[in-house]
Amino acid sequence: MSLLIKNGTILSAEGEYNSDIYVEEEKIVAIGKNLDYNADEIVDATGKYMFPGGVDEHVHYGSFGTLDFSTSNAPVVGGTTTVVDFPPQIVGMGIKDSVKVAHENAKDVAMVDYSFHGLVMYPTEDIFDELLTLPEAGISTIKFFMAYKGTPFMVNDDVIFKAMQVAKKAGVTIFLHAENGELVDLLQKQLIAEGKTDPIYHAASRPPVVEAEATRRAIYMAELADSPLFIVHVTAKEAMEAIRDAYQSGLSVYGETCTHYLTLTEEKLAEPNFEGAKYVCSPALRKQEHVDALWQAVQKGWLKAVGSDHAANVGGFENDKKKGLHDFTKIPNGCPSAQDRLALLWTYGVETGKITKEKFVELFSTNPAKIVGLFPEKGQIAIGSDADIVIFDPTYRGKITVEESYHRSDYNTFEGMDMIGRPEKVYLRGKLTAENGKFVGIKGQGKYIKSKPFGLCYEEFKGRATKTSSLV
Amino acid sequence: MSLLIKNGTILSAEGEYNSDIYVEEEKIVAIGKNLDYNADEIVDATGKYMFPGGVDEHVHYGSFGTLDFSTSNAPVVGGTTTVVDFPPQIVGMGIKDSVKVAHENAKDVAMVDYSFHGLVMYPTEDIFDELLTLPEAGISTIKFFMAYKGTPFMVNDDVIFKAMQVAKKAGVTIFLHAENGELVDLLQKQLIAEGKTDPIYHAASRPPVVEAEATRRAIYMAELADSPLFIVHVTAKEAMEAIRDAYQSGLSVYGETCTHYLTLTEEKLAEPNFEGAKYVCSPALRKQEHVDALWQAVQKGWLKAVGSDHAANVGGFENDKKKGLHDFTKIPNGCPSAQDRLALLWTYGVETGKITKEKFVELFSTNPAKIVGLFPEKGQIAIGSDADIVIFDPTYRGKITVEESYHRSDYNTFEGMDMIGRPEKVYLRGKLTAENGKFVGIKGQGKYIKSKPFGLCYEEFKGRATKTSSLV
Amino acid sequence: MSLLIKNGTILSAEGEYNSDIYVEEEKIVAIGKNLDYNADEIVDATGKYMFPGGVDEHVHYGSFGTLDFSTSNAPVVGGTTTVVDFPPQIVGMGIKDSVKVAHENAKDVAMVDYSFHGLVMYPTEDIFDELLTLPEAGISTIKFFMAYKGTPFMVNDDVIFKAMQVAKKAGVTIFLHAENGELVDLLQKQLIAEGKTDPIYHAASRPPVVEAEATRRAIYMAELADSPLFIVHVTAKEAMEAIRDAYQSGLSVYGETCTHYLTLTEEKLAEPNFEGAKYVCSPALRKQEHVDALWQAVQKGWLKAVGSDHAANVGGFENDKKKGLHDFTKIPNGCPSAQDRLALLWTYGVETGKITKEKFVELFSTNPAKIVGLFPEKGQIAIGSDADIVIFDPTYRGKITVEESYHRSDYNTFEGMDMIGRPEKVYLRGKLTAENGKFVGIKGQGKYIKSKPFGLCYEEFKGRATKTSSLV
Amino acid sequence: MSLLIKNGTILSAEGEYNSDIYVEEEKIVAIGKNLDYNADEIVDATGKYMFPGGVDEHVHYGSFGTLDFSTSNAPVVGGTTTVVDFPPQIVGMGIKDSVKVAHENAKDVAMVDYSFHGLVMYPTEDIFDELLTLPEAGISTIKFFMAYKGTPFMVNDDVIFKAMQVAKKAGVTIFLHAENGELVDLLQKQLIAEGKTDPIYHAASRPPVVEAEATRRAIYMAELADSPLFIVHVTAKEAMEAIRDAYQSGLSVYGETCTHYLTLTEEKLAEPNFEGAKYVCSPALRKQEHVDALWQAVQKGWLKAVGSDHAANVGGFENDKKKGLHDFTKIPNGCPSAQDRLALLWTYGVETGKITKEKFVELFSTNPAKIVGLFPEKGQIAIGSDADIVIFDPTYRGKITVEESYHRSDYNTFEGMDMIGRPEKVYLRGKLTAENGKFVGIKGQGKYIKSKPFGLCYEEFKGRATKTSSLV
Repeated sequence: MSLLIKNGTILSAEGEYNSDIYVEEEKIVAIGKNLDYNADEIVDATGKYMFPGGVDEHVHYGSFGTLDFSTSNAPVVGGTTTVVDFPPQIVGMGIKDSVKVAHENAKDVAMVDYSFHGLVMYPTEDIFDELLTLPEAGISTIKFFMAYKGTPFMVNDDVIFKAMQVAKKAGVTIFLHAENGELVDLLQKQLIAEGKTDPIYHAASRPPVVEAEATRRAIYMAELADSPLFIVHVTAKEAMEAIRDAYQSGLSVYGETCTHYLTLTEEKLAEPNFEGAKYVCSPALRKQEHVDALWQAVQKGWLKAVGSDHAANVGGFENDKKKGLHDFTKIPNGCPSAQDRLALLWTYGVETGKITKEKFVELFSTNPAKIVGLFPEKGQIAIGSDADIVIFDPTYRGKITVEESYHRSDYNTFEGMDMIGRPEKVYLRGKLTAENGKFVGIKGQGKYIKSKPFGLCYEEFKGRATKTSSLV
Repeated sequence: MSLLIKNGTILSAEGEYNSDIYVEEEKIVAIGKNLDYNADEIVDATGKYMFPGGVDEHVHYGSFGTLDFSTSNAPVVGGTTTVVDFPPQIVGMGIKDSVKVAHENAKDVAMVDYSFHGLVMYPTEDIFDELLTLPEAGISTIKFFMAYKGTPFMVNDDVIFKAMQVAKKAGVTIFLHAENGELVDLLQKQLIAEGKTDPIYHAASRPPVVEAEATRRAIYMAELADSPLFIVHVTAKEAMEAIRDAYQSGLSVYGETCTHYLTLTEEKLAEPNFEGAKYVCSPALRKQEHVDALWQAVQKGWLKAVGSDHAANVGGFENDKKKGLHDFTKIPNGCPSAQDRLALLWTYGVETGKITKEKFVELFSTNPAKIVGLFPEKGQIAIGSDADIVIFDPTYRGKITVEESYHRSDYNTFEGMDMIGRPEKVYLRGKLTAENGKFVGIKGQGKYIKSKPFGLCYEEFKGRATKTSSLV
Repeated sequence: MSLLIKNGTILSAEGEYNSDIYVEEEKIVAIGKNLDYNADEIVDATGKYMFPGGVDEHVHYGSFGTLDFSTSNAPVVGGTTTVVDFPPQIVGMGIKDSVKVAHENAKDVAMVDYSFHGLVMYPTEDIFDELLTLPEAGISTIKFFMAYKGTPFMVNDDVIFKAMQVAKKAGVTIFLHAENGELVDLLQKQLIAEGKTDPIYHAASRPPVVEAEATRRAIYMAELADSPLFIVHVTAKEAMEAIRDAYQSGLSVYGETCTHYLTLTEEKLAEPNFEGAKYVCSPALRKQEHVDALWQAVQKGWLKAVGSDHAANVGGFENDKKKGLHDFTKIPNGCPSAQDRLALLWTYGVETGKITKEKFVELFSTNPAKIVGLFPEKGQIAIGSDADIVIFDPTYRGKITVEESYHRSDYNTFEGMDMIGRPEKVYLRGKLTAENGKFVGIKGQGKYIKSKPFGLCYEEFKGRATKTSSLV
Repeated sequence: MSLLIKNGTILSAEGEYNSDIYVEEEKIVAIGKNLDYNADEIVDATGKYMFPGGVDEHVHYGSFGTLDFSTSNAPVVGGTTTVVDFPPQIVGMGIKDSVKVAHENAKDVAMVDYSFHGLVMYPTEDIFDELLTLPEAGISTIKFFMAYKGTPFMVNDDVIFKAMQVAKKAGVTIFLHAENGELVDLLQKQLIAEGKTDPIYHAASRPPVVEAEATRRAIYMAELADSPLFIVHVTAKEAMEAIRDAYQSGLSVYGETCTHYLTLTEEKLAEPNFEGAKYVCSPALRKQEHVDALWQAVQKGWLKAVGSDHAANVGGFENDKKKGLHDFTKIPNGCPSAQDRLALLWTYGVETGKITKEKFVELFSTNPAKIVGLFPEKGQIAIGSDADIVIFDPTYRGKITVEESYHRSDYNTFEGMDMIGRPEKVYLRGKLTAENGKFVGIKGQGKYIKSKPFGLCYEEFKGRATKTSSLV
């Protein structure tokens, strides 16, 4: 099976240029002018951009009551060809076994390539030992929660610190959900006690300071452990600045933000008729000044990636979100969003001049692949890389709507927002799998991609080595 | 004339991968596995890196008593295929005409591709008007000096500020030599009056504060003028931090450093037998803490490029430097260095782990090309770019010596320093022009490359536009 | 009973001038040249300084196994006329009742005037209610511990935050011991498991980051609660800087350091023959760079006071400290130091030029009185204030020795250190009570001083009121 | 001549307390309760504050066309008992002789005590030599201008730097007017060329950046010269922050602001009918955010004093200001303000809660006296100090009007603004000299006060000495 794409404009993190691309056996084999190959399929991309399929480092499929991989055609339609999921540790099981279960559930179902982060919830001594061998099993990132007091998610500082001490030996990158769980819990109780039960109080119960504090605490721990650190879904200006300043001071501290934090504000939570519940996720949506700071952060490289934090509740608005009708703390967290990442970044980032096109490729694909350890197979258009290619039509004009969504949710988080440009064709390892907003692939086409240790967050650690010429 | 390089490892600012490269009519035409072209020349690059020829944004050929382009085979042997020169404004002439004179002198002589910065010394009203039309003539960068009191180089703040107001309209980037000329002049006089005439007092006469002050002042002016700014040869930690912080705060302020500031310290100026004079350049060499800070700055992206500031005095050590035997202020400034940029960056940067290989390509080639406005013709290995290709053998071990230098100077600034790795072959627009330290090209092979306005330092300004899809 | 001191030099936080002081009925009644009163006692202070008796805001008498108020002649001999003690909350009792018990123990015994901080250990709902009425009972400061995991001292973030929400309504100032108890506990266990049981590992188990983190966390909580905050015994440069920066940014965040952190370094913990145990206190002693930073902080006003953190273990070195001979975590914390505060501040601060004499008065007496709410009765030489007066002979030269100490400990923390200057006479409310290093007062002479709410840490809060003229 | 003030509330930089004050031979002799002296004059101050007469470190009497000391009853009526004037250097004369001339003009005329700063305009070598002997002549502060290009006021960086090198040897404090004269001059010409001639463009011609730049430059010079520095009339937030940060980093950099910058904004310059010209002074009035930052700066101690920068043009609005009717650059700079300093600081500072009463005393009297070298004779109510005493009635309510002004100008800068509280009685060296807004003293009563070197700005330098006990 071979494919020749003619005359498109390749867009990379470095620049853009006109070229053909030739693909054989799922890989990119040649890039050049007037390539002369007898390909099974020849496509004309004149007037189109060609960039690497998106890598979404932050999705939730089939955990905590979210829809499973049977809805994973959504990201593909939206130009994302690889997702990285967070299967929670199962009671009584280790991380590798918990991931194995998740893999079983995804296999034969997933329509997108996928990889897994570990997610520690029961941090026994065994788990710390297991951290060292995770990369052998293709798991090179591990997540902890500093929030959700009263659930098994939240762990104490000593657990995180100890994990940092161990993980760095194996090149495993620590992902942290950074909110002060003690304070959130107290604020929630105080608000409910005062009769403040509407969705808007979700934001009041997890103010920016709560995120900034936990972020700063995590940075101190990484400093003491001399370990890399990756903070997920950064939303507060102060938290972003803490990450930026830590990195600047020489620490290996990194972070991502997510599309909804770049495009929606806390006012959404105040929408009438309980509609605000649709936007309940944690951390909470923020005020405009935070949104502005986050755009600046992604353009300047202070935050390295933009994930979706996709989490479509099985029951959607009607059957899940409404559980919290009289108590915002009972609203299930999460929003469907995996399909819309490209549309939002391009329309509200590139088209408004907030980010350059080169930066878009970096945030959408290259950096997530490097952070998780999937590069160079994923994350770039280059010889030898997987032929995950988006042919993007920048002239398309449309809207984001629930009708056009493959999320199988009863609402769309970004309903009615503009969509400038659209993937005309999406290739997954050389196979056409989405076309003009329609999924044209097959169930189970997604492949499990093992992640490699010592990802992007270890770049400074690599620098410490005295010899780096890989060829010698 | 066509060329096929087989089986090398392409190294870019983004990553590395194994590939062939095919070149036709001076351009890169195809990149791929097992490329099947009937090429005039076929080269095997197994075990070698292939990266874009260097772009040296800071050289002096034939001005202020330096050797002219007849020594410009030196950079080529050292893997640099494009240099950008600073021809001083000639009394009674405009910038374009002054550049024209320089071009006449370079043409038929240059052995490296070359471009020109303007250098304003007689800032009449006409010159401010001329700024607007420089890009039409292929001049998109313009330099001013804040130092050298008592010479026509030094201009007042109002000149720089007014130039900023005008230049931004045409996308011309302002380059500044930032040292407080008033203070340097006073300190020089005080030192000489105290009998402190040795080369080491050159450093005392231009301490880091003098550079930090002028840098900060220039940043304030850029802020007021709402203009981009590029500071050349940053050497002081405090100056670098001022640039870093200004950029972070949202200003379009950038800078470069140079190879000698990354590899030599002020102790060199104290070498006996007047040898210290060999290292007299401005700003002066600094203490180790500054060197350390500069390495951090280039790796983290706070400084964007590393030039050579090549300036080989016609009379060398014996006939030029010794003019200052009894008065350090009479020592002609400048050191030969254009040949050694790659060797120093790779050996003391990549091999020590201070910078990654990807960063090396960015500092050595990609960013300089973008800053000056020569990208994408120069600065990358990509389809359609000029076939300036270095085939680099990372296993070579040698030393930098005056004997191996093409600078035609009677000393080498980096004499005896290690050289790990070496360009096995250097191609200039597809033509083999240097091989294992020997120049194999011909006189006059260098081509004048016009620079384009709105270079890298305007990236944030571009971001202000509301529409950026170049295809639509 | 009246007293006339002639011809001394009054030293205040503002400056110095020559004057007489006249005292009647325990109060300062007149200050002036050639005062003409028939006093019961007339003293000549020619060539001597006269400054207000010290206020030590941080002492431990009779709690956690420390010696009780029967050794409180020590501070008086050292020029401190008021101490503020931290009686721990007693199980099943409220704060007021716990203080009442402490008061019973001190009364008829104390030889120094004294006041009490509350110390919360069992934070039930009742305790939060009680916070509001503490000032009525003369308790206007309350302390919490973020450290000592596994003991009732350590409280969670929600407790501290809730206390902040409540205390500010009553003008009660929150004092915090800021170290991350989770991390200290883990590090202690790891060190002991590795066989690192010597006193020096006490420092390794509570590194500066652990203090900086907790300090920063407390500041975030104070920001969210919009509440003042006072951090006790600041030792780490980074913690001090966090306090300084928070205050600068507009928050009401303050701190003290203690004499041993200004004069001893971590090397003390490595003294042979288990002598290091004598210096085990928490936070741990630091390296010289922290000591230097602390001196700068007290001179510049970034830390407001210098307490002693006096805690003399009942069994001293032989019978208490040696409990940790094989496990540093079992060494009882604390060092005797209340007598030496003046000597250390003057000798190592004023005499070395690190602080001015005016600043000495502020740190030693005026500010502690203001912080705790004892000003203007305590903390200044002014009309109407208590006649707590030190007549200080700056010409004295001696050493600090255990023989001269009234601490009743078997060692002196500052053994052999220099003492420049000494209180020639110390008056407590007009009564001579110490003379040239000898106690000449009587047991039980100390008086309980109630503290007033809205102390120094509320200065910015007072500023928020729109009307401040107290006379109108 | 003796005076006994009974029952007032003494207000100092440290606190407040009820007391009597007894004065003999111009000095404060006793402070106390129920003082029993046979005084020539006995005054009851019940319900009144008593604080030290103001020291205004920044006034212009009789230079550049301003009214002379014959209007110096104005400050006295406003509670200021000492002013420090800036007599410009006279061509062909040294600093001491120029001051002598000014002294001649003031003597027998001045109704306020006065001292002089030197003001260098013709910086020959002789002047640098003279700097060393200024303190012997009672001149311990010296001023330079970085602005006013095209006039003899403006000096180059080398002059300022050299003055710093010299002045510190003699303990002379350098005062700087910090604005970039080159840029102001260019902006003025550009604005006038564009037809922007109204007073409001005065602000546009000297934007905050111009002040921030010069301030930062001066700080760099002070750092290099290792010298103290005092910046006058700080108005821009960024300039204030530069001073604050420099001081924090360990440099001896200080500054003042002035009353109009704390109470008026740039909008005043836009008042119709050319009224804006009344507010033309340099630096220019700023926007509200700067005003807010300045209040924070004086309360937090980042700026140390508040002067008036009093400069009442001889011709007032009608005959002087109107010279610039068609060209704002021709409007004489300066505003009458010496009488209103206390009223503005108390009404808009203390009464609004922006500063505490203690801070008011510090800014109004104590610190200016220390900065200029007039303390302890001036600046405090203490034994041995001059009996400059304000008895202040905080219950008074009125307005500031030109009718009540002694400035002899045809307008009042603060016309119609509120006045809460008023000096009921003002004593100059024990003599009643103003009462309830009326001058009751006599012409020529003012005395020349010599200033002492090593003022407040040298506090850190004093700290460098190893021995500070003045008594030993």
